[in-house]
Amino acid sequence: MGEFELIRRYFSPLAGQSRAGSLVLGPGDDCAIERVASGHELVFSVDTLVEGVHFPAGYDPEHLGWRSLAVAASDLAAMGAQPVCFTLALTLPEASPEWLDPFSRGLSRASRAFGLELAGGDTTRGPLTLSLQVHGEVPSGAALLRTGAEAGDFLCVSGTLGAAGAALDYLDSVSPSEDERAVLERYHAPVPRLNLGIALRGVASAAIDISDGLLADLGHILEASGVGADLDCQAMPVSSAVTRLKGQAEALRLALEAGDDYELCVAIPPALWKELPEAVRTQLSIVGKVVSESGITGIEGSLVAGGYDHFGSK
Amino acid sequence: MGEFELIRRYFSPLAGQSRAGSLVLGPGDDCAIERVASGHELVFSVDTLVEGVHFPAGYDPEHLGWRSLAVAASDLAAMGAQPVCFTLALTLPEASPEWLDPFSRGLSRASRAFGLELAGGDTTRGPLTLSLQVHGEVPSGAALLRTGAEAGDFLCVSGTLGAAGAALDYLDSVSPSEDERAVLERYHAPVPRLNLGIALRGVASAAIDISDGLLADLGHILEASGVGADLDCQAMPVSSAVTRLKGQAEALRLALEAGDDYELCVAIPPALWKELPEAVRTQLSIVGKVVSESGITGIEGSLVAGGYDHFGSK
Repeated sequence: MGEFELIRRYFSPLAGQSRAGSLVLGPGDDCAIERVASGHELVFSVDTLVEGVHFPAGYDPEHLGWRSLAVAASDLAAMGAQPVCFTLALTLPEASPEWLDPFSRGLSRASRAFGLELAGGDTTRGPLTLSLQVHGEVPSGAALLRTGAEAGDFLCVSGTLGAAGAALDYLDSVSPSEDERAVLERYHAPVPRLNLGIALRGVASAAIDISDGLLADLGHILEASGVGADLDCQAMPVSSAVTRLKGQAEALRLALEAGDDYELCVAIPPALWKELPEAVRTQLSIVGKVVSESGITGIEGSLVAGGYDHFGSK
Repeated sequence: MGEFELIRRYFSPLAGQSRAGSLVLGPGDDCAIERVASGHELVFSVDTLVEGVHFPAGYDPEHLGWRSLAVAASDLAAMGAQPVCFTLALTLPEASPEWLDPFSRGLSRASRAFGLELAGGDTTRGPLTLSLQVHGEVPSGAALLRTGAEAGDFLCVSGTLGAAGAALDYLDSVSPSEDERAVLERYHAPVPRLNLGIALRGVASAAIDISDGLLADLGHILEASGVGADLDCQAMPVSSAVTRLKGQAEALRLALEAGDDYELCVAIPPALWKELPEAVRTQLSIVGKVVSESGITGIEGSLVAGGYDHFGSK
């Protein structure tokens, strides 16, 4: 199978799935062309996944297809952006239908679910590596940034934390239990909080998605905003499946330190919190407050802010 | 050296080099933010370079820095787009200053030369792979496409052809001759025809950049436009250095079949050709005409349309 046939068969069907309709020209020319709505700005981010680093060697290609787009789209959620389109730079050792069929199926499902149309890409031969760049739109000046958190703001996280981190212990389970299946689902098929991010425009004073662990990612907000945090570990939305599998202490550690959950961590001024619609507030847990002194307090025991650093010598 | 230190030291200096000033937010948040000028469209393309496939193992990192951005920017030239910014997804085995210093120096020189500001990226550990996505702008509807060539149009190429292809034989030369140095320069430091592409807005009926070889890339224009070509090999702007190094027949073959020159191939209606400013016309050679019958005629001997197909079984 040649490169052009590969693109035609597996990836061309992913073009034309946009809700926004702002892609003027999709794959097939030297560049793609996108129209950004009047009064709006383009928001974009690139994420790379390398076999053996970001996912295990031999990882299920259908899960990989979904997961790679979900991970990238999560950065749009953290900015409060409306998804538009994405590009895929795919390097793979060989063009086998056994891999490409399920991969493109998972990617296509995610593409439809997130409203991200395939705009273009590049397919090359080499060690399995994926770089996905996602494009979104926000009304000018409305993007949620890491800067802007102020002392007194509530610190909130969406959903529950720790499941994707716990899942790493069960990736090879032959007949996983119900709880194991629940945490594996969080690892294989994360759901970026796109609608929540949009709902928090004009509300959240700062936002980030939790890819490297709550403490590490919250740390980025605190550093960018020049503030600190006082956390309430009792209020942490620890995954109940993880608590049953791992016990309370380890579940809390995973909720604070493990990555890959792709929930949002946001700061919200109390006055705006009260005005949030019930349907938005129920997606969030208040886990602490922003304080003026730098650093993070309220963490019991020997927890150390971790997170993943690719070239780390911590 | 950690990931954040690596980014701070080697790549943060490449942000803020834009001429356009349309980057609202550069590297450091979940996403970058770009403002597209009123009445304009965003034009973007992604290119991947893999060690051992697109450049030799152990290839000089300063050349690689320049070349990787030049290759990507060439797609903007082919669309007639004004360069704005780029993202870099860099996967590398280890964060060594011996590699990163010259790489970022070459990339930075190219960034300034092409007016492409670094907007964001992702740095991961793994086999050496680079994916660069370039962003440009065109007035709405003014982009040069592969479609649009019509019978009777002149077929033109910019500059000279064949040098980058010939250079592959001299990459390991210890003391290259003057001609060898000339062709090596074309391989190591290609210059995308950005200003020429912009000058051809409203003039060229179709355009592409020559990355895979003239016959292969012209073939994309012909297929997209539903036409054919009658070439005049006598008029081909064969590199004189290549003619001296390789002889006339092999130099012509390289001009037609070898890639990596990053010149433009465009179709121009004769009436518009006559109106082109002298300074633009001198950058172009008329190498044939568009004809209504599909296929390419006028190629002597046993030349076969080649070009590079990453998963090819030609």
